[in-house]
Amino acid sequence: MQNIYDNNKFYNSYLKLRENNAGLNEVLEIPAFRSLLPDLDNKTILDLGCGYGENCKWYINKGAKKVIGIDISKNMIEKAKKEYSDDKIEYKNVPMEELDFSKNIFDIVLSSLSFHYVKDFNSLIEKINKMLKPNGSLVFSQEHPIATAKKKKNGWFINNQGEKSHWIMDNYHYEGKREQEWFIDGVIKYHRTIATILNTLIKHGFNILKVLEPIALETAEKNNAQLKEERRRPPFIIIKVKSTKCIN
Amino acid sequence: MQNIYDNNKFYNSYLKLRENNAGLNEVLEIPAFRSLLPDLDNKTILDLGCGYGENCKWYINKGAKKVIGIDISKNMIEKAKKEYSDDKIEYKNVPMEELDFSKNIFDIVLSSLSFHYVKDFNSLIEKINKMLKPNGSLVFSQEHPIATAKKKKNGWFINNQGEKSHWIMDNYHYEGKREQEWFIDGVIKYHRTIATILNTLIKHGFNILKVLEPIALETAEKNNAQLKEERRRPPFIIIKVKSTKCIN
Repeated sequence: MQNIYDNNKFYNSYLKLRENNAGLNEVLEIPAFRSLLPDLDNKTILDLGCGYGENCKWYINKGAKKVIGIDISKNMIEKAKKEYSDDKIEYKNVPMEELDFSKNIFDIVLSSLSFHYVKDFNSLIEKINKMLKPNGSLVFSQEHPIATAKKKKNGWFINNQGEKSHWIMDNYHYEGKREQEWFIDGVIKYHRTIATILNTLIKHGFNILKVLEPIALETAEKNNAQLKEERRRPPFIIIKVKSTKCIN
Repeated sequence: MQNIYDNNKFYNSYLKLRENNAGLNEVLEIPAFRSLLPDLDNKTILDLGCGYGENCKWYINKGAKKVIGIDISKNMIEKAKKEYSDDKIEYKNVPMEELDFSKNIFDIVLSSLSFHYVKDFNSLIEKINKMLKPNGSLVFSQEHPIATAKKKKNGWFINNQGEKSHWIMDNYHYEGKREQEWFIDGVIKYHRTIATILNTLIKHGFNILKVLEPIALETAEKNNAQLKEERRRPPFIIIKVKSTKCIN
Protein backbone atom coordinates (compact mmCIF):
# COMPACT_ATOMS: atom_id res chain seq x y z
CA MET A 1 0.00 0.00 0.00
CA GLN A 2 1.42 3.31 -1.06
CA ASN A 3 0.93 6.25 1.29
CA ILE A 4 1.52 8.99 -1.22
CA TYR A 5 -0.31 11.71 0.72
CA ASP A 6 2.35 11.51 3.41
CA ASN A 7 5.03 12.40 0.88
CA ASN A 8 5.50 16.09 1.66
CA LYS A 9 6.04 17.30 -1.87
CA PHE A 10 2.95 15.45 -3.06
CA TYR A 11 0.88 16.54 -0.06
CA ASN A 12 1.70 20.22 -0.45
CA SER A 13 1.06 20.18 -4.20
CA TYR A 14 -2.24 18.41 -3.65
CA LEU A 15 -3.39 20.89 -1.00
CA LYS A 16 -2.50 23.80 -3.25
CA LEU A 17 -4.54 22.27 -6.07
CA ARG A 18 -7.57 21.77 -3.85
CA GLU A 19 -7.29 25.16 -2.14
CA ASN A 20 -7.16 26.95 -5.48
CA ASN A 21 -10.06 24.88 -6.80
CA ALA A 22 -7.76 24.15 -9.69
CA GLY A 23 -8.57 20.45 -9.91
CA LEU A 24 -11.61 18.67 -11.22
CA ASN A 25 -12.98 17.78 -7.79
CA GLU A 26 -14.96 20.93 -7.03
CA VAL A 27 -16.53 21.44 -10.45
CA LEU A 28 -16.95 17.89 -11.59
CA GLU A 29 -16.58 15.08 -9.09
CA ILE A 30 -18.06 16.57 -5.91
CA PRO A 31 -21.38 17.81 -7.40
CA ALA A 32 -21.96 14.52 -9.22
CA PHE A 33 -20.97 12.41 -6.21
CA ARG A 34 -23.27 14.31 -3.87
CA SER A 35 -26.16 14.07 -6.36
CA LEU A 36 -26.08 10.29 -5.91
CA LEU A 37 -26.18 10.21 -2.12
CA PRO A 38 -29.16 8.61 -0.43
CA ASP A 39 -30.92 10.42 2.41
CA LEU A 40 -28.26 10.83 5.11
CA ASP A 41 -30.61 11.78 7.93
CA ASN A 42 -29.80 9.89 11.12
CA LYS A 43 -27.52 7.48 9.22
CA THR A 44 -24.27 5.86 10.35
CA ILE A 45 -21.69 6.40 7.63
CA LEU A 46 -18.23 5.10 6.82
CA ASP A 47 -16.07 7.34 4.61
CA LEU A 48 -13.21 5.39 3.01
CA GLY A 49 -10.24 7.55 2.09
CA CYS A 50 -11.76 10.58 3.79
CA GLY A 51 -8.74 12.84 3.13
CA TYR A 52 -8.89 16.04 5.14
CA GLY A 53 -12.50 15.47 6.17
CA GLU A 54 -14.42 17.99 4.10
CA ASN A 55 -16.96 15.34 3.04
CA CYS A 56 -17.35 13.90 6.56
CA LYS A 57 -18.36 17.31 7.87
CA TRP A 58 -20.73 17.81 4.97
CA TYR A 59 -22.45 14.49 5.76
CA ILE A 60 -22.96 15.61 9.36
CA ASN A 61 -24.41 18.91 8.15
CA LYS A 62 -26.86 16.87 6.05
CA GLY A 63 -28.12 15.12 9.16
CA ALA A 64 -25.91 12.04 9.54
CA LYS A 65 -25.92 10.59 13.07
CA LYS A 66 -22.32 9.40 13.01
CA VAL A 67 -19.47 9.43 10.49
CA ILE A 68 -16.30 7.39 10.69
CA GLY A 69 -13.64 8.76 8.35
CA ILE A 70 -10.58 6.66 7.64
CA ASP A 71 -7.48 7.46 5.65
CA ILE A 72 -4.05 5.94 5.13
CA SER A 73 -2.40 9.37 5.40
CA LYS A 74 -1.40 10.75 8.78
CA ASN A 75 -1.10 14.22 7.19
CA MET A 76 -4.69 14.08 6.02
CA ILE A 77 -6.11 12.78 9.29
CA GLU A 78 -4.26 15.48 11.26
CA LYS A 79 -5.63 18.19 8.99
CA ALA A 80 -9.12 16.69 9.23
CA LYS A 81 -9.02 16.70 13.03
CA LYS A 82 -7.94 20.34 12.96
CA GLU A 83 -10.26 21.72 10.32
CA TYR A 84 -13.29 19.47 10.10
CA SER A 85 -13.73 18.05 13.57
CA ASP A 86 -17.13 17.33 15.05
CA ASP A 87 -18.48 15.37 18.01
CA LYS A 88 -20.22 13.07 15.58
CA ILE A 89 -17.11 12.39 13.46
CA GLU A 90 -14.42 9.88 14.34
CA TYR A 91 -11.23 10.04 12.28
CA LYS A 92 -8.94 7.02 12.07
CA ASN A 93 -5.52 6.82 10.45
CA VAL A 94 -5.76 3.36 8.89
CA PRO A 95 -5.60 2.02 5.32
CA MET A 96 -8.97 0.80 4.06
CA GLU A 97 -7.36 -2.55 3.25
CA GLU A 98 -6.85 -3.15 6.99
CA LEU A 99 -10.32 -2.22 8.16
CA ASP A 100 -11.90 -4.56 10.65
CA PHE A 101 -15.33 -3.38 11.66
CA SER A 102 -18.14 -5.64 12.87
CA LYS A 103 -20.84 -6.96 10.59
CA ASN A 104 -23.93 -4.93 9.73
CA ILE A 105 -23.03 -1.66 11.40
CA PHE A 106 -23.11 1.00 8.63
CA ASP A 107 -26.14 2.30 6.78
CA ILE A 108 -24.00 3.85 4.08
CA VAL A 109 -20.40 3.46 2.89
CA LEU A 110 -19.00 6.33 0.83
CA SER A 111 -15.70 6.81 -0.91
CA SER A 112 -14.54 9.68 -3.06
CA LEU A 113 -11.62 9.12 -5.48
CA SER A 114 -9.78 6.49 -3.44
CA PHE A 115 -10.61 3.05 -4.83
CA HIS A 116 -8.10 3.39 -7.70
CA TYR A 117 -5.36 3.26 -5.03
CA VAL A 118 -6.54 -0.17 -3.84
CA LYS A 119 -4.92 -3.30 -5.24
CA ASP A 120 -7.47 -5.90 -4.20
CA PHE A 121 -10.87 -4.59 -5.22
CA ASN A 122 -12.59 -7.92 -4.66
CA SER A 123 -11.61 -8.12 -0.96
CA LEU A 124 -12.54 -4.48 -0.46
CA ILE A 125 -16.05 -4.94 -1.84
CA GLU A 126 -16.51 -8.16 0.12
CA LYS A 127 -15.53 -6.32 3.31
CA ILE A 128 -17.81 -3.37 2.58
CA ASN A 129 -20.74 -5.70 2.05
CA LYS A 130 -19.99 -7.34 5.41
CA MET A 131 -19.90 -4.00 7.25
CA LEU A 132 -23.08 -2.69 5.64
CA LYS A 133 -26.49 -3.32 7.11
CA PRO A 134 -28.97 -5.19 4.89
CA ASN A 135 -30.23 -2.74 2.24
CA GLY A 136 -27.23 -0.56 2.94
CA SER A 137 -25.86 1.69 0.20
CA LEU A 138 -22.40 2.15 -1.26
CA VAL A 139 -21.54 5.18 -3.38
CA PHE A 140 -18.01 5.55 -4.69
CA SER A 141 -16.14 7.54 -7.27
CA GLN A 142 -12.83 6.64 -8.85
CA GLU A 143 -10.72 7.47 -11.85
CA HIS A 144 -12.41 6.17 -14.98
CA PRO A 145 -10.91 3.02 -16.52
CA ILE A 146 -10.48 5.04 -19.73
CA ALA A 147 -8.24 7.36 -17.72
CA THR A 148 -6.22 4.64 -15.98
CA ALA A 149 -5.84 2.11 -18.82
CA LYS A 150 -2.62 3.34 -20.40
CA LYS A 151 0.70 2.31 -18.87
CA LYS A 152 3.04 5.30 -18.43
CA LYS A 153 2.38 8.73 -19.94
CA ASN A 154 -1.35 8.41 -19.57
CA GLY A 155 -3.08 11.35 -21.10
CA TRP A 156 -3.69 13.56 -24.09
CA PHE A 157 -1.87 13.18 -27.37
CA ILE A 158 -0.40 16.59 -28.12
CA ASN A 159 0.03 17.32 -31.82
CA ASN A 160 2.71 19.44 -33.53
CA GLN A 161 0.62 22.56 -32.99
CA GLY A 162 0.60 21.92 -29.26
CA GLU A 163 -3.10 21.03 -29.25
CA LYS A 164 -4.83 18.17 -27.49
CA SER A 165 -5.38 16.00 -30.53
CA HIS A 166 -7.12 13.13 -28.73
CA TRP A 167 -6.95 11.01 -25.57
CA ILE A 168 -4.46 8.15 -25.65
CA MET A 169 -6.16 4.84 -24.93
CA ASP A 170 -4.23 1.60 -24.57
CA ASN A 171 -3.74 -1.60 -22.56
CA TYR A 172 -7.36 -1.65 -21.45
CA HIS A 173 -7.43 -5.38 -20.74
CA TYR A 174 -4.13 -5.43 -18.89
CA GLU A 175 -5.37 -4.83 -15.38
CA GLY A 176 -3.16 -3.97 -12.44
CA LYS A 177 -0.57 -1.51 -11.28
CA ARG A 178 0.04 1.79 -13.04
CA GLU A 179 2.81 4.16 -12.10
CA GLN A 180 2.04 7.74 -12.97
CA GLU A 181 3.57 11.11 -12.57
CA TRP A 182 1.21 13.32 -10.58
CA PHE A 183 3.09 16.09 -8.72
CA ILE A 184 5.83 13.49 -8.16
CA ASP A 185 7.01 10.40 -9.97
CA GLY A 186 5.82 6.94 -9.09
CA VAL A 187 2.26 7.53 -7.90
CA ILE A 188 0.70 4.07 -7.90
CA LYS A 189 -2.83 3.45 -9.06
CA TYR A 190 -4.61 0.28 -10.13
CA HIS A 191 -6.39 -0.11 -13.44
CA ARG A 192 -9.46 -2.31 -13.64
CA THR A 193 -11.91 -2.69 -16.50
CA ILE A 194 -15.50 -1.53 -16.25
CA ALA A 195 -16.62 -5.16 -16.48
CA THR A 196 -14.41 -6.13 -13.51
CA ILE A 197 -15.70 -3.26 -11.39
CA LEU A 198 -19.36 -3.95 -12.12
CA ASN A 199 -19.15 -7.75 -11.95
CA THR A 200 -17.29 -7.62 -8.62
CA LEU A 201 -20.09 -5.51 -7.15
CA ILE A 202 -22.74 -7.85 -8.61
CA LYS A 203 -20.90 -10.94 -7.38
CA HIS A 204 -20.99 -9.64 -3.81
CA GLY A 205 -24.73 -9.10 -3.98
CA PHE A 206 -24.87 -5.43 -4.86
CA ASN A 207 -27.64 -4.14 -7.07
CA ILE A 208 -26.46 -1.41 -9.44
CA LEU A 209 -28.66 1.66 -9.07
CA LYS A 210 -26.83 4.33 -11.04
CA VAL A 211 -23.61 4.97 -12.92
CA LEU A 212 -22.33 8.49 -13.62
CA GLU A 213 -19.50 9.67 -15.84
CA PRO A 214 -19.73 13.29 -14.76
CA ILE A 215 -19.09 16.34 -16.87
CA ALA A 216 -18.41 19.73 -15.33
CA LEU A 217 -21.13 22.05 -14.08
CA GLU A 218 -22.33 24.43 -16.78
CA THR A 219 -21.36 27.45 -14.70
CA ALA A 220 -17.86 26.07 -14.30
CA GLU A 221 -17.52 25.43 -18.03
CA LYS A 222 -18.50 29.04 -18.72
CA ASN A 223 -15.72 30.29 -16.46
CA ASN A 224 -13.14 27.89 -17.81
CA ALA A 225 -13.16 26.85 -21.44
CA GLN A 226 -10.53 24.21 -20.72
CA LEU A 227 -13.07 22.28 -18.70
CA LYS A 228 -15.14 21.52 -21.75
CA GLU A 229 -12.23 19.41 -22.96
CA GLU A 230 -13.08 16.93 -20.21
CA ARG A 231 -16.13 16.01 -22.28
CA ARG A 232 -13.76 14.43 -24.76
CA ARG A 233 -12.92 11.64 -22.32
CA PRO A 234 -14.43 10.71 -18.97
CA PRO A 235 -12.05 11.41 -16.07
CA PHE A 236 -14.22 9.80 -13.37
CA ILE A 237 -16.83 7.13 -12.85
CA ILE A 238 -19.25 7.21 -9.92
CA ILE A 239 -21.30 4.18 -8.98
CA LYS A 240 -24.23 3.79 -6.60
CA VAL A 241 -25.20 0.32 -5.44
CA LYS A 242 -27.39 -1.25 -2.79
CA SER A 243 -26.71 -4.39 -0.83
CA THR A 244 -29.24 -7.16 -1.34
CA LYS A 245 -27.91 -9.30 1.50
CA CYS A 246 -30.19 -10.73 4.14
CA ILE A 247 -29.46 -10.40 7.84
CA ASN A 248 -26.85 -12.96 8.81
CA MET B 1 -33.03 4.18 -40.11
CA GLN B 2 -30.18 3.13 -42.33
CA ASN B 3 -30.49 -0.24 -44.06
CA ILE B 4 -26.83 -0.74 -44.81
CA TYR B 5 -27.00 -4.52 -45.23
CA ASP B 6 -29.15 -4.05 -48.33
CA ASN B 7 -26.38 -2.05 -49.98
CA ASN B 8 -24.91 -4.71 -52.25
CA LYS B 9 -21.29 -3.69 -51.93
CA PHE B 10 -21.57 -3.64 -48.14
CA TYR B 11 -23.56 -6.89 -48.03
CA ASN B 12 -21.09 -8.82 -50.16
CA SER B 13 -18.08 -7.53 -48.25
CA TYR B 14 -19.75 -8.39 -44.95
CA LEU B 15 -20.59 -11.93 -46.05
CA LYS B 16 -17.05 -12.48 -47.23
CA LEU B 17 -15.72 -11.33 -43.86
CA ARG B 18 -18.02 -13.67 -41.95
CA GLU B 19 -17.52 -16.63 -44.29
CA ASN B 20 -13.75 -16.36 -43.94
CA ASN B 21 -14.04 -15.98 -40.17
CA ALA B 22 -11.92 -12.90 -40.68
CA GLY B 23 -13.90 -10.66 -38.32
CA LEU B 24 -14.03 -10.57 -34.56
CA ASN B 25 -17.44 -12.24 -34.32
CA GLU B 26 -16.41 -15.89 -34.33
CA VAL B 27 -13.42 -15.64 -32.01
CA LEU B 28 -14.54 -12.90 -29.69
CA GLU B 29 -18.16 -11.82 -29.70
CA ILE B 30 -20.02 -15.08 -30.31
CA PRO B 31 -18.33 -17.18 -27.57
CA ALA B 32 -18.74 -14.41 -25.00
CA PHE B 33 -22.33 -13.68 -26.01
CA ARG B 34 -23.33 -17.33 -25.79
CA SER B 35 -21.63 -17.72 -22.41
CA LEU B 36 -24.13 -15.22 -21.00
CA LEU B 37 -27.29 -16.88 -22.28
CA PRO B 38 -29.77 -18.18 -19.75
CA ASP B 39 -31.20 -21.69 -20.15
CA LEU B 40 -33.01 -21.65 -23.51
CA ASP B 41 -34.95 -24.88 -23.03
CA ASN B 42 -38.58 -24.49 -24.04
CA LYS B 43 -38.22 -20.70 -24.17
CA THR B 44 -39.84 -18.21 -26.54
CA ILE B 45 -37.12 -15.93 -27.90
CA LEU B 46 -36.96 -12.71 -29.87
CA ASP B 47 -33.73 -12.10 -31.81
CA LEU B 48 -33.34 -8.41 -32.71
CA GLY B 49 -31.16 -7.84 -35.77
CA CYS B 50 -30.94 -11.56 -36.47
CA GLY B 51 -28.92 -11.13 -39.68
CA TYR B 52 -28.76 -14.35 -41.68
CA GLY B 53 -30.18 -16.43 -38.87
CA GLU B 54 -27.19 -18.37 -37.62
CA ASN B 55 -27.98 -17.51 -34.00
CA CYS B 56 -31.71 -18.26 -34.34
CA LYS B 57 -30.93 -21.77 -35.49
CA TRP B 58 -28.43 -22.21 -32.67
CA TYR B 59 -31.07 -21.20 -30.10
CA ILE B 60 -33.43 -23.85 -31.51
CA ASN B 61 -30.66 -26.43 -31.30
CA LYS B 62 -30.25 -25.49 -27.65
CA GLY B 63 -33.88 -26.33 -26.99
CA ALA B 64 -35.80 -23.10 -27.59
CA LYS B 65 -39.52 -23.63 -28.26
CA LYS B 66 -39.89 -20.74 -30.68
CA VAL B 67 -37.61 -18.04 -32.10
CA ILE B 68 -38.72 -14.90 -33.88
CA GLY B 69 -35.85 -13.33 -35.81
CA ILE B 70 -36.26 -9.83 -37.14
CA ASP B 71 -33.93 -7.77 -39.30
CA ILE B 72 -34.15 -4.53 -41.26
CA SER B 73 -32.32 -6.11 -44.21
CA LYS B 74 -34.25 -8.00 -46.90
CA ASN B 75 -30.95 -9.55 -48.05
CA MET B 76 -30.32 -10.97 -44.63
CA ILE B 77 -33.83 -12.32 -44.08
CA GLU B 78 -33.79 -14.01 -47.51
CA LYS B 79 -30.50 -15.68 -46.73
CA ALA B 80 -31.77 -16.71 -43.29
CA LYS B 81 -34.87 -18.32 -44.79
CA LYS B 82 -32.70 -20.23 -47.23
CA GLU B 83 -29.90 -21.35 -44.96
CA TYR B 84 -31.19 -21.37 -41.39
CA SER B 85 -34.88 -22.15 -41.70
CA ASP B 86 -36.72 -24.24 -39.14
CA ASP B 87 -40.36 -24.91 -38.27
CA LYS B 88 -39.78 -23.24 -34.94
CA ILE B 89 -38.22 -20.07 -36.41
CA GLU B 90 -40.18 -17.18 -37.85
CA TYR B 91 -38.17 -14.57 -39.78
CA LYS B 92 -39.56 -11.09 -40.27
CA ASN B 93 -38.13 -8.29 -42.40
CA VAL B 94 -38.83 -5.33 -40.12
CA PRO B 95 -36.62 -2.75 -38.35
CA MET B 96 -36.51 -3.25 -34.61
CA GLU B 97 -37.64 0.36 -34.15
CA GLU B 98 -41.02 -0.58 -35.69
CA LEU B 99 -41.69 -3.70 -33.68
CA ASP B 100 -45.16 -4.03 -32.27
CA PHE B 101 -45.59 -7.25 -30.35
CA SER B 102 -48.03 -7.78 -27.51
CA LYS B 103 -47.08 -7.41 -23.88
CA ASN B 104 -45.44 -10.20 -21.90
CA ILE B 105 -44.88 -12.71 -24.69
CA PHE B 106 -41.13 -13.40 -24.75
CA ASP B 107 -39.07 -15.23 -22.15
CA ILE B 108 -35.83 -13.91 -23.60
CA VAL B 109 -34.82 -11.08 -25.93
CA LEU B 110 -31.41 -11.40 -27.56
CA SER B 111 -29.49 -9.09 -29.85
CA SER B 112 -26.02 -9.50 -31.26
CA LEU B 113 -24.16 -6.42 -32.52
CA SER B 114 -27.19 -4.41 -33.63
CA PHE B 115 -28.05 -1.88 -30.95
CA HIS B 116 -25.34 0.55 -32.10
CA TYR B 117 -27.42 1.04 -35.26
CA VAL B 118 -30.42 2.24 -33.25
CA LYS B 119 -30.91 5.95 -32.71
CA ASP B 120 -33.43 5.89 -29.87
CA PHE B 121 -32.09 3.49 -27.27
CA ASN B 122 -34.56 4.58 -24.62
CA SER B 123 -37.64 3.67 -26.70
CA LEU B 124 -36.05 0.39 -27.70
CA ILE B 125 -35.43 -0.67 -24.10
CA GLU B 126 -38.89 0.46 -23.05
CA LYS B 127 -40.40 -1.67 -25.82
CA ILE B 128 -38.28 -4.70 -24.97
CA ASN B 129 -39.37 -4.51 -21.35
CA LYS B 130 -43.00 -4.41 -22.49
CA MET B 131 -42.62 -7.49 -24.70
CA LEU B 132 -40.76 -9.49 -22.06
CA LYS B 133 -42.57 -11.63 -19.54
CA PRO B 134 -41.97 -10.78 -15.87
CA ASN B 135 -38.49 -12.03 -14.93
CA GLY B 136 -37.63 -12.15 -18.61
CA SER B 137 -34.01 -11.75 -19.69
CA LEU B 138 -32.31 -9.49 -22.19
CA VAL B 139 -28.79 -10.19 -23.43
CA PHE B 140 -27.25 -7.87 -26.01
CA SER B 141 -23.87 -7.08 -27.46
CA GLN B 142 -22.87 -3.89 -29.20
CA GLU B 143 -19.78 -1.97 -30.17
CA HIS B 144 -18.08 -0.65 -27.07
CA PRO B 145 -18.48 3.08 -26.36
CA ILE B 146 -14.68 3.29 -26.39
CA ALA B 147 -14.87 2.06 -29.99
CA THR B 148 -17.68 4.37 -31.11
CA ALA B 149 -16.77 7.59 -29.28
CA LYS B 150 -14.56 9.24 -31.85
CA LYS B 151 -16.16 11.15 -34.70
CA LYS B 152 -14.68 10.20 -38.09
CA LYS B 153 -11.55 8.07 -38.48
CA ASN B 154 -12.25 6.05 -35.43
CA GLY B 155 -9.45 3.68 -34.68
CA TRP B 156 -5.79 3.11 -34.05
CA PHE B 157 -3.20 5.84 -34.17
CA ILE B 158 -0.55 4.64 -36.59
CA ASN B 159 2.93 5.99 -35.89
CA ASN B 160 5.70 6.79 -38.36
CA GLN B 161 6.91 3.19 -38.22
CA GLY B 162 3.47 2.01 -39.31
CA GLU B 163 2.71 0.50 -35.91
CA LYS B 164 -0.48 0.72 -33.90
CA SER B 165 0.76 3.25 -31.36
CA HIS B 166 -2.47 3.48 -29.35
CA TRP B 167 -6.24 3.69 -29.71
CA ILE B 168 -7.63 7.14 -30.48
CA MET B 169 -10.23 8.17 -27.91
CA ASP B 170 -12.21 11.37 -28.24
CA ASN B 171 -15.65 12.99 -28.00
CA TYR B 172 -16.84 10.49 -25.42
CA HIS B 173 -19.55 12.75 -24.01
CA TYR B 174 -20.88 13.86 -27.37
CA GLU B 175 -23.51 11.19 -27.92
CA GLY B 176 -25.28 10.56 -31.19
CA LYS B 177 -24.65 9.81 -34.82
CA ARG B 178 -21.28 8.63 -36.10
CA GLU B 179 -20.55 8.12 -39.77
CA GLN B 180 -17.84 5.57 -40.37
CA GLU B 181 -16.16 3.89 -43.24
CA TRP B 182 -16.69 0.14 -43.01
CA PHE B 183 -16.56 -1.53 -46.45
CA ILE B 184 -18.30 1.58 -47.77
CA ASP B 185 -18.47 5.21 -46.73
CA GLY B 186 -21.23 6.57 -44.54
CA VAL B 187 -22.11 3.62 -42.32
CA ILE B 188 -24.19 5.16 -39.55
CA LYS B 189 -23.84 4.10 -35.93
CA TYR B 190 -24.86 5.77 -32.70
CA HIS B 191 -22.49 6.48 -29.85
CA ARG B 192 -23.78 6.37 -26.30
CA THR B 193 -21.82 6.49 -23.07
CA ILE B 194 -21.61 3.53 -20.70
CA ALA B 195 -23.56 5.53 -18.14
CA THR B 196 -26.39 6.17 -20.62
CA ILE B 197 -26.60 2.51 -21.60
CA LEU B 198 -26.64 1.25 -18.02
CA ASN B 199 -28.93 3.94 -16.60
CA THR B 200 -31.46 3.45 -19.41
CA LEU B 201 -31.65 -0.24 -18.57
CA ILE B 202 -31.98 0.50 -14.84
CA LYS B 203 -34.62 3.18 -15.47
CA HIS B 204 -36.81 0.66 -17.28
CA GLY B 205 -36.63 -1.75 -14.37
CA PHE B 206 -33.83 -4.02 -15.52
CA ASN B 207 -31.46 -5.53 -13.01
CA ILE B 208 -27.89 -5.73 -14.28
CA LEU B 209 -26.61 -9.30 -13.94
CA LYS B 210 -23.34 -9.26 -15.88
CA VAL B 211 -21.22 -7.04 -18.11
CA LEU B 212 -18.56 -8.47 -20.43
CA GLU B 213 -15.88 -6.74 -22.45
CA PRO B 214 -14.73 -9.86 -24.25
CA ILE B 215 -11.24 -10.72 -25.32
CA ALA B 216 -10.53 -13.39 -27.92
CA LEU B 217 -10.41 -17.08 -27.15
CA GLU B 218 -6.93 -18.28 -26.23
CA THR B 219 -6.88 -20.74 -29.12
CA ALA B 220 -7.75 -17.95 -31.53
CA GLU B 221 -5.02 -15.70 -30.14
CA LYS B 222 -2.47 -18.47 -30.66
CA ASN B 223 -3.43 -18.75 -34.32
CA ASN B 224 -3.51 -15.02 -34.90
CA ALA B 225 -1.12 -12.72 -33.07
CA GLN B 226 -3.04 -9.69 -34.35
CA LEU B 227 -5.97 -10.68 -32.17
CA LYS B 228 -4.01 -9.97 -29.01
CA GLU B 229 -4.02 -6.33 -30.03
CA GLU B 230 -7.74 -6.27 -29.29
CA ARG B 231 -6.77 -6.46 -25.62
CA ARG B 232 -5.46 -2.94 -25.95
CA ARG B 233 -9.00 -1.57 -26.32
CA PRO B 234 -12.38 -3.24 -25.91
CA PRO B 235 -14.19 -3.63 -29.24
CA PHE B 236 -17.47 -4.92 -27.76
CA ILE B 237 -19.59 -4.76 -24.65
CA ILE B 238 -22.11 -7.46 -23.77
CA ILE B 239 -24.75 -6.92 -21.13
CA LYS B 240 -27.12 -9.34 -19.43
CA VAL B 241 -30.10 -7.96 -17.55
CA LYS B 242 -33.31 -9.28 -16.04
CA SER B 243 -36.66 -7.54 -15.97
CA THR B 244 -37.99 -6.81 -12.49
CA LYS B 245 -41.45 -5.80 -13.71
CA CYS B 246 -44.59 -7.25 -12.18
CA ILE B 247 -47.39 -8.69 -14.28
CA ASN B 248 -49.47 -5.84 -15.67
